[in-house]
Amino acid sequence: MKAEIITIGDEILLGQIVDTNSAWMAQALLSLQIQIEQITSISDREEHILEALHNASKRADLIICTGGLGPTKDDVTKFTAAKFFNTSLVRNEAVLDHVRGIFARMNRSMPDINHGQADVLANGEVLFNDWGTAPGIWVSHEEKVFVFLPGVPFEMKSLMTHRVLPKLKEFKSEEKIAIRYILTVGIGESHLATQIADIEDSFPAHLHLAYLPKIGLVRLRVSASGRDLEELEKDVEHYTDLLADRIGDAVVAREDLSFEEVIVRSFVESKATLSTAESCTGGNVAKQITEVAGASEMFIGGIIAYANQVKEALLHVEHATLEAYGAVSEETAIQMAKGAQKQLGTTYAIATTGIAGPGGGTPDKPVGTVWVAIAGRSEVKTKLFQFHQDRVLNIERTTSQALLMLWNLFQKEKGF
Amino acid sequence: MKAEIITIGDEILLGQIVDTNSAWMAQALLSLQIQIEQITSISDREEHILEALHNASKRADLIICTGGLGPTKDDVTKFTAAKFFNTSLVRNEAVLDHVRGIFARMNRSMPDINHGQADVLANGEVLFNDWGTAPGIWVSHEEKVFVFLPGVPFEMKSLMTHRVLPKLKEFKSEEKIAIRYILTVGIGESHLATQIADIEDSFPAHLHLAYLPKIGLVRLRVSASGRDLEELEKDVEHYTDLLADRIGDAVVAREDLSFEEVIVRSFVESKATLSTAESCTGGNVAKQITEVAGASEMFIGGIIAYANQVKEALLHVEHATLEAYGAVSEETAIQMAKGAQKQLGTTYAIATTGIAGPGGGTPDKPVGTVWVAIAGRSEVKTKLFQFHQDRVLNIERTTSQALLMLWNLFQKEKGF
Repeated sequence: MKAEIITIGDEILLGQIVDTNSAWMAQALLSLQIQIEQITSISDREEHILEALHNASKRADLIICTGGLGPTKDDVTKFTAAKFFNTSLVRNEAVLDHVRGIFARMNRSMPDINHGQADVLANGEVLFNDWGTAPGIWVSHEEKVFVFLPGVPFEMKSLMTHRVLPKLKEFKSEEKIAIRYILTVGIGESHLATQIADIEDSFPAHLHLAYLPKIGLVRLRVSASGRDLEELEKDVEHYTDLLADRIGDAVVAREDLSFEEVIVRSFVESKATLSTAESCTGGNVAKQITEVAGASEMFIGGIIAYANQVKEALLHVEHATLEAYGAVSEETAIQMAKGAQKQLGTTYAIATTGIAGPGGGTPDKPVGTVWVAIAGRSEVKTKLFQFHQDRVLNIERTTSQALLMLWNLFQKEKGF
Repeated sequence: MKAEIITIGDEILLGQIVDTNSAWMAQALLSLQIQIEQITSISDREEHILEALHNASKRADLIICTGGLGPTKDDVTKFTAAKFFNTSLVRNEAVLDHVRGIFARMNRSMPDINHGQADVLANGEVLFNDWGTAPGIWVSHEEKVFVFLPGVPFEMKSLMTHRVLPKLKEFKSEEKIAIRYILTVGIGESHLATQIADIEDSFPAHLHLAYLPKIGLVRLRVSASGRDLEELEKDVEHYTDLLADRIGDAVVAREDLSFEEVIVRSFVESKATLSTAESCTGGNVAKQITEVAGASEMFIGGIIAYANQVKEALLHVEHATLEAYGAVSEETAIQMAKGAQKQLGTTYAIATTGIAGPGGGTPDKPVGTVWVAIAGRSEVKTKLFQFHQDRVLNIERTTSQALLMLWNLFQKEKGF
């Protein structure tokens, strides 16, 4: 079953929001062996929506559209879809009662414009929205399935999970996909490719190897598509084994895990604990770790020491150190890491201190200067980074590098 | 000038990564009055790339493609583009020297496969990549401009900023756009729409009003397109004034600011300071605030109190309180907020404590139970939330609600 996503709304095209919906939907559909072939983001304009629906229906069997179902005038998805299907909109009383109920529970009157949210496509089936005012709609049309969902992430996810995926389970796709992942740390993409070149060359035609590099990491994806899922699974397993054996110690996961998930699992397994002392990353290191389910088994806590007084009072960085070397220095980073390790009583501690920008740079320490320190069982590792001008990027890169340094020290001290 | 983005690579279609590049590019292009009309995400397959290039070139004048320029076999963008333009690839010695230099600086030998990164389209102009191994390529073809960039965000952004945008500045677009924003807090989308309905109805045809709702916030965008930029600017300014006057106190910004930026600015202006005491949000509240440039003028620091011992030791939450009411309770939230406020010496403090999930729920306190407390100048506000099963969503929603509560108390205490 070939599927496509169409996101409708100017917000994405103007860069006002990042489209996080599509990645979530792609993962959810993949769990049903449905692969997204194209994602198209278009404006709220009628002619644009009609063209996208037309083109997608030529290529795909399942077309999921998000956005443009709100009560305001800029939302035209339903009217346009009615035109596309050559059908009309009809008022659904059950939906209307539901929308009224939402306003009643908030003790607010329902504005007239919300009546329109109860209008649904005459040729469609209502996907009842228990999580908001705009219902989803499912349309079977000329052997294709069209699904219309609100663009609000929370409502989209709830409707997908409770309404769309259960219905899609009934469709048995002829085309199956098997996928395996290998996460590697510490080898560049080119060297990795060279190391496994002969194995990649030996891949049968229906197998595909993809490289997904990030800072310090490369994720390999081995995928196969065809009719016989059992055979496909056997094939991808076989070649993934070959690759993993060749790559050796640089393999940190054989599953589709994030690096943070690998860190959390490994720490929990070896009963190691972690704390953070963050200045320039402002909580982002802890945030990345604590997004992982089960992080509470290894993450004890952290101190975001933005102001120097917090570095002194809570992390016990010496006043003289701050005076002599400044907040952005190796000496301060070391004391921050040791302070967190001691105050929070953890096996490991991460410290970051730097100038994220855009202000605060000096000739000696320009914007992008960052020190990271990792306190471990037996030593403290430090590293100086010189990043660039972009504040958000500097925070992200510091976080990535800090987690890599943590991992390297953790690996080195294994069995300590 | 009509522009489109094509992102090439299976990662996005498989939901492995969220496409953050497109939003960034859209914003960057908008600063040059170039509006993105469509974003298309496709796989690494040749026929798919050819179809997308063909379709986009029928609609747009500028087509920016990202991804598929790496050294590994799954990267086929350049070969496919050569086919599309009916041209060939030629080795560029300057690029080859540059790639060799990168490996030399890392004290690594350059794998043979990196030679191919110096091959560029014969009909194109090299966009030299000082930030990585894959050069960008600029192609003028049948009165259209095609730009090929690597998909790695850092390299894409650097190439856009230093190579592509300066060249695009030379193109004077006939079609101009003027845009204004209004950020509102505390009014639902429907009520807001009802409140301003007559103004919206009076909009001339070339003006467009869009609603972008988020939790507790609605951003309004007034845009106008046409030939005379000065006239357009006057028009959007006029109607934005009308809307802002009508909406009144709920307007928190007349610029394109995030809510976090509004908070940081307002705190700095009134010399108020902020600290955080986070349990279930694990640093995300602080992260959102500290991503804003200038946050260091109002954000002092925070304590991520994941384990109960940290709540006691660093936030001075009483042991008896944790025993009697549990970590997820109004009493604990209040003591956390007061503890942060006192320990860090700030005017305001945000505390979050809850069960983010998926584990840790009980019949009394199921997953998604969250208490937020805001300590202010004269009182502590608390609120109980009952969110759902999704860990990451629970963290995000708690963060949004905590910032809304902070804003409301800050507004209430203004001039205190």
